[in-house]
Amino acid sequence: MTSAGAAQIKIGIVGGTGYTGVELLRLLSQHPNAQLKAITSRKEDGMPVADMYPNLRGRVDLCFQTPEKAALEECDVVFFATPHGVAMAQAENLLKHNVRIIDLAADFRLQDTRVFERWYKMPHSCPGVLKQSAYGLVELNRKQIAGAQVVGNPGCYPTTVLLGLAPLLEGGVQYIDTTRIIADCKSGVSGAGRKAEVGSLFSEASDNFKAYGAAGHRHHPEITEQLQVLAGGPVGLTFVPHLVPMIRGMFSTIYARILPQALDTDFQALFEKRYAGEAFVDVMPAGSLPDTRSVRASNHLRIAIHRPNGGDQLIILVAQDNLVKGASGQAIQNMNLMFGLPESTGLEQVAILP
Amino acid sequence: MTSAGAAQIKIGIVGGTGYTGVELLRLLSQHPNAQLKAITSRKEDGMPVADMYPNLRGRVDLCFQTPEKAALEECDVVFFATPHGVAMAQAENLLKHNVRIIDLAADFRLQDTRVFERWYKMPHSCPGVLKQSAYGLVELNRKQIAGAQVVGNPGCYPTTVLLGLAPLLEGGVQYIDTTRIIADCKSGVSGAGRKAEVGSLFSEASDNFKAYGAAGHRHHPEITEQLQVLAGGPVGLTFVPHLVPMIRGMFSTIYARILPQALDTDFQALFEKRYAGEAFVDVMPAGSLPDTRSVRASNHLRIAIHRPNGGDQLIILVAQDNLVKGASGQAIQNMNLMFGLPESTGLEQVAILP
Amino acid sequence: MTSAGAAQIKIGIVGGTGYTGVELLRLLSQHPNAQLKAITSRKEDGMPVADMYPNLRGRVDLCFQTPEKAALEECDVVFFATPHGVAMAQAENLLKHNVRIIDLAADFRLQDTRVFERWYKMPHSCPGVLKQSAYGLVELNRKQIAGAQVVGNPGCYPTTVLLGLAPLLEGGVQYIDTTRIIADCKSGVSGAGRKAEVGSLFSEASDNFKAYGAAGHRHHPEITEQLQVLAGGPVGLTFVPHLVPMIRGMFSTIYARILPQALDTDFQALFEKRYAGEAFVDVMPAGSLPDTRSVRASNHLRIAIHRPNGGDQLIILVAQDNLVKGASGQAIQNMNLMFGLPESTGLEQVAILP
Amino acid sequence: MTSAGAAQIKIGIVGGTGYTGVELLRLLSQHPNAQLKAITSRKEDGMPVADMYPNLRGRVDLCFQTPEKAALEECDVVFFATPHGVAMAQAENLLKHNVRIIDLAADFRLQDTRVFERWYKMPHSCPGVLKQSAYGLVELNRKQIAGAQVVGNPGCYPTTVLLGLAPLLEGGVQYIDTTRIIADCKSGVSGAGRKAEVGSLFSEASDNFKAYGAAGHRHHPEITEQLQVLAGGPVGLTFVPHLVPMIRGMFSTIYARILPQALDTDFQALFEKRYAGEAFVDVMPAGSLPDTRSVRASNHLRIAIHRPNGGDQLIILVAQDNLVKGASGQAIQNMNLMFGLPESTGLEQVAILP
Repeated sequence: MTSAGAAQIKIGIVGGTGYTGVELLRLLSQHPNAQLKAITSRKEDGMPVADMYPNLRGRVDLCFQTPEKAALEECDVVFFATPHGVAMAQAENLLKHNVRIIDLAADFRLQDTRVFERWYKMPHSCPGVLKQSAYGLVELNRKQIAGAQVVGNPGCYPTTVLLGLAPLLEGGVQYIDTTRIIADCKSGVSGAGRKAEVGSLFSEASDNFKAYGAAGHRHHPEITEQLQVLAGGPVGLTFVPHLVPMIRGMFSTIYARILPQALDTDFQALFEKRYAGEAFVDVMPAGSLPDTRSVRASNHLRIAIHRPNGGDQLIILVAQDNLVKGASGQAIQNMNLMFGLPESTGLEQVAILP
Repeated sequence: MTSAGAAQIKIGIVGGTGYTGVELLRLLSQHPNAQLKAITSRKEDGMPVADMYPNLRGRVDLCFQTPEKAALEECDVVFFATPHGVAMAQAENLLKHNVRIIDLAADFRLQDTRVFERWYKMPHSCPGVLKQSAYGLVELNRKQIAGAQVVGNPGCYPTTVLLGLAPLLEGGVQYIDTTRIIADCKSGVSGAGRKAEVGSLFSEASDNFKAYGAAGHRHHPEITEQLQVLAGGPVGLTFVPHLVPMIRGMFSTIYARILPQALDTDFQALFEKRYAGEAFVDVMPAGSLPDTRSVRASNHLRIAIHRPNGGDQLIILVAQDNLVKGASGQAIQNMNLMFGLPESTGLEQVAILP
Repeated sequence: MTSAGAAQIKIGIVGGTGYTGVELLRLLSQHPNAQLKAITSRKEDGMPVADMYPNLRGRVDLCFQTPEKAALEECDVVFFATPHGVAMAQAENLLKHNVRIIDLAADFRLQDTRVFERWYKMPHSCPGVLKQSAYGLVELNRKQIAGAQVVGNPGCYPTTVLLGLAPLLEGGVQYIDTTRIIADCKSGVSGAGRKAEVGSLFSEASDNFKAYGAAGHRHHPEITEQLQVLAGGPVGLTFVPHLVPMIRGMFSTIYARILPQALDTDFQALFEKRYAGEAFVDVMPAGSLPDTRSVRASNHLRIAIHRPNGGDQLIILVAQDNLVKGASGQAIQNMNLMFGLPESTGLEQVAILP
Repeated sequence: MTSAGAAQIKIGIVGGTGYTGVELLRLLSQHPNAQLKAITSRKEDGMPVADMYPNLRGRVDLCFQTPEKAALEECDVVFFATPHGVAMAQAENLLKHNVRIIDLAADFRLQDTRVFERWYKMPHSCPGVLKQSAYGLVELNRKQIAGAQVVGNPGCYPTTVLLGLAPLLEGGVQYIDTTRIIADCKSGVSGAGRKAEVGSLFSEASDNFKAYGAAGHRHHPEITEQLQVLAGGPVGLTFVPHLVPMIRGMFSTIYARILPQALDTDFQALFEKRYAGEAFVDVMPAGSLPDTRSVRASNHLRIAIHRPNGGDQLIILVAQDNLVKGASGQAIQNMNLMFGLPESTGLEQVAILP
């Protein structure tokens, strides 16, 4: 877990029993600068983590503890792998102790608290902290994250849609019609978490495909808020998520109309240039068809650009592992940045294929 | 659902929200003599069945009702697709109204009530009814079922192991060593039902394989009791169930040592002869390898006999759909028999492949 | 397979070893008017069909034959479940013998032979027959099919996109912008057939998701040709197919912009009215989310209409079983119509759920 | 791929297009002492490895080469991830150049060449080399491997059965009846390799379960030969492999009768002691139920011991990833040993769960 001589970051995890929690543990247990200090779960107090997750046998010897017992204030950083609302309740106390916070839930994703309250059905309890927090999409927001005490780790769908559209919007509205963007997104079942719900049962989700949030999904306002920051103006987005019978993986098919004045643009070159220095964003060669398994269990996100018959319809294909670049890997990427480590530290695992 | 002129059986289903319930509905809605009168669920009172199970849209227009509203006493037969313990609580009242009972749970499977109580953690509330009930494995018990008021529909694993061993035991202990039979059994996830439990989640059960009841499983005493009836004496069985990442399907690999005096037996012929007249038991040609998809969604059970290098080790392979021959199809086969209909009525669907 | 007294249709199947072939056999073996006379396969000459497809044991006792041995000319109808190009080579001879033809490949789908030749890389060998053939999408083309000698059974994707858009186009361009329709479509792996190809291996396609024909797919011109017939003018369609790790099932998410003058339209009512009399098209209640398992192994296609926030974006969700309504079930629906049988004959199986 | 200062091993891979090949690449690209020099494929000469396996983009920049172009003689070690028969054809030449060989096929697994020839249908072309080769199951054969020039990497099934039985046999026949051992084994589909075969298609293998080698399997003689080495005498084994609808994973359920004189043995303690120092063999606590996902993509193998009701039947459950500990990971473990590196070098990845 640790290598002699390297600077050690003392880490706490709140709510480590879910899938983003175990994925944090998998990655942190292989991170040379991570020193796991505490992991909390009210329900499983006293249980060795490796009893619940036998893949960690011999690698993680912590036990779950109640939040009261865990000395979170002594950590350098605390990850919240909890339901929405938990991080904001504990943020101010931790900040007082100079502990940095990375929230994998939604508490620090939306700057507009009215939007937060409408979608998450709870008031925001620390708008002051929120205002100083950073939206944790490293490739778009590196500088702010590096200096932040609190990071709101992005939602899984937003990560794919934002990275898939950023090169088209960052310079202002010049390439695509921003009034009618369509994101047809597909997620593996682990995105629903480890909650015992009928809809996530094997016998319900296997050998099946469906759309599930056509009437509205919490990631819609998050994507829109960030797209508008990028574009510097209003953006119209249609977003339909679907459920795929696979454990991990997320795939977004994004449709945008190219503006008449931009028809001569070399979009392949535009994307390649934009992401040239990024370790985790792979713009594949023209004509490529990324698949989710090519990023399975890795922090990479792969993009391919298509333009059928050279017309005015742009299609951007984006693949990631929803639990890694879409959640826990991205959180660690944020941590690396916040603590001045090379961004890829502990995140260089090669995707599992087949 | 019904064809003019045919005798109609008035049918009630108690607890129709689970997988054996919806499977009963699928099959009964295609049964020419079935007249569905009521289906109960306390929790879903008033909900159209087809709202929960859209495959039944346009085919079943009943709503779930509380047991109190459902006029079960006016039915000819009531199926219990409920947790263990429900059928025995209602049996005496229904019998008073001359309603026949087919219980898909365990209340009428074990004649030894002490064994029942040990494994199901509840006293048996109507041992008198139990004594007169029939064990509903048609191929082994046809005559008794035809005259029964109450049938205990067999467990899924017992169906495969009993039909896989019956030809070897029915004539007394003459073919195999009955002190050391091994049944290594594998089930699809639907066998765990539609309960929201973490272990049955897609992200837990998919792309995974495990044994799960090595320390003891409720079907063990049920199999043993029936094997002893067949063999006319004690039988020693090792039974290990496993969980397979597929929705439907059950496969049992049964190992038995051939007795020295039986080494010349033609076991292929023995099995073929035993099941020659059976509509739903298919003894495949020598050397066959049945797969579960060849019985998917059908009431057939396929058997193949192997004897490596002609030695003294007999291997019997048995495949069925756990929800059909292992549960709801078998229940309807029992109903047909109890009401004097041809045994295959409404059960002739061809398996879905691929 | 047959019921005494019913008119019997003598049936031949050319190329019955693939998935559409076995699915024809499954359905025809349960069809009261079907009399299977011959099934051809050069490679498997002499092999009992049930040896290759054990789900048919006891139900189909035919053997595969070479085309030369099979007396196809004596059939009333011949289904071609073959690669593209086979049906057109044999059509004229069969027609001479008064045998009707239903081709499940593409030979009689595209009226524009130049388009056919561009996409299928072969000249069309009987344009005269093609001109008199009917496009076999019953719900759109009932009258022409009833009188046809040759039917081109639609592709799987076209079935979903055409039925999902027909109510919006049949009255001319009045509801949606026909210059920019997007169809984001997802198919189970059986759509690729039973060919031994690396991309269709379990270890490649399982636990994975990808787009696969972004640069062009053969179903694109087929959909466009038919949409233009419906709309009476040019239609612009973007079509991206994706591969889902499930055996059967197809799901299309169709995006269309509502024209300003049509913003007051009740699209739910429009669709319900259009398909009110259709046995196999189910317009689900407003807000529904169809899933592919609700049509698994059945000939039904389910549609749901969404309009997020009542805006000008219409989303049509369409689910079918690609092997049934998308192929073999539809072919039998065509046969029923061609032979004057009730359209649902032999196609009333309830979908398998779970 | 390499870390400055560490001793570098020059590595060639013959036949790198299959699943054991890409798994070698995944692991070696993360191995601090591995210097990939060449990877051969006749068919894909000139193709960048990362074009076939996009998970390796940015990590492996080699192209496939024909064996002629690849300077295998200059490597320190060559892995053969080829069909049976390739390694033995090239072994003598490589040995002449002082290149060590690790064969992932069967050429150096069976010391009895008559048995090899019977099962693999080819004569053994270098029995002299075979005689000096080591059977590469590190935990059983460490010393011999460390000094070997040629290692036959074990089959996947043999790895589980041998490690599951070794503690019971190493001291001679004292614990179990060695005349009737049963190994009921289950494998994920990747075990069949990346060959385009109908039986391995998604639509054939998914949502399905079957036995497949009941009449005889090539791993049977390999297991038996090694069991007899361990036991110092004849061993009778019944071995039935099954196919599980998952990509990776292997699970063996082993049944053995405890000898009367061994009934007092603490088998849990026996196994724990035997494997106490082993990095990759995890004897789980008494009562555990290992699942394959707990070793997915890792080199660990987990064992649990069961003894129902304390009787004389011993059940040993063994789980591994067939592509890692069952193939490529084990091969690298052998390499580490042969080159004097710590055995776990480059193999410490935590299993992927979920």
